[in-house]
Amino acid sequence: MADSATQDAPQVLAALRFGGDGLIPAMAQQHDSGEVLMLAWMNREAVTETLKTGRVCYWSRSRKQLWRKGESSGHIQRLVELRVDCDGDALLLLVDQNGVACHTGTRSCFFRAAHDGTLVEIQKPSGAAAPGETR
Amino acid sequence: MADSATQDAPQVLAALRFGGDGLIPAMAQQHDSGEVLMLAWMNREAVTETLKTGRVCYWSRSRKQLWRKGESSGHIQRLVELRVDCDGDALLLLVDQNGVACHTGTRSCFFRAAHDGTLVEIQKPSGAAAPGETR
Repeated sequence: MADSATQDAPQVLAALRFGGDGLIPAMAQQHDSGEVLMLAWMNREAVTETLKTGRVCYWSRSRKQLWRKGESSGHIQRLVELRVDCDGDALLLLVDQNGVACHTGTRSCFFRAAHDGTLVEIQKPSGAAAPGETR
Repeated sequence: MADSATQDAPQVLAALRFGGDGLIPAMAQQHDSGEVLMLAWMNREAVTETLKTGRVCYWSRSRKQLWRKGESSGHIQRLVELRVDCDGDALLLLVDQNGVACHTGTRSCFFRAAHDGTLVEIQKPSGAAAPGETR
């Protein structure tokens, strides 16, 4: 599916419904294992750049700027396929995650689960340094 | 993981950060296959009901009411596990999906993918009627 990355995006962008804040939620899923890694947000520019470069770029709502995933940590996400939902208001990114997805050091951001009414950790920080990692 | 459903939720709710609109995005993933089925939204009441009943209930932004998934179609989602992300502002629901998740009749709402700059259908409506389905 390598041909699905590095592509121009006008037709794809036309199918997307961004929210009033100009953003659309995007889930990242490891393409081969199926593990859901994180949920973040994209604006039009982030989608365009992601499709053009084949490297996932989000919009950081806290920093209010483009967030090239892994730019400082080395934990980049290579885009394998970008999928759009029925209403055009959510994205599913099949990615190849380098190292860990979460800033806490866990592979997935979803490392807590509700068990018997309390949240328990179901995944620990891996501690494994990724190639090129700078933290 | 059956013990993770039908539970009271105050401690779990306390860890969640709902948006200004009172909503939090929730992804549903088929628990055994890993297929991402849909993204929808929950308010505090929907999370509470889902944890209490073990059946997934969303908040419909278009109808502005609780949306008990499958209430009319029979395509219910049984909750296997509710996971919370690092920031507490996104949910991952591991579910057992009865029939199809999408109102278009496809198993997943993410049935379109960007290939070479255009959106192509990668999944067709199954046409398989689920038990109790009324459409």
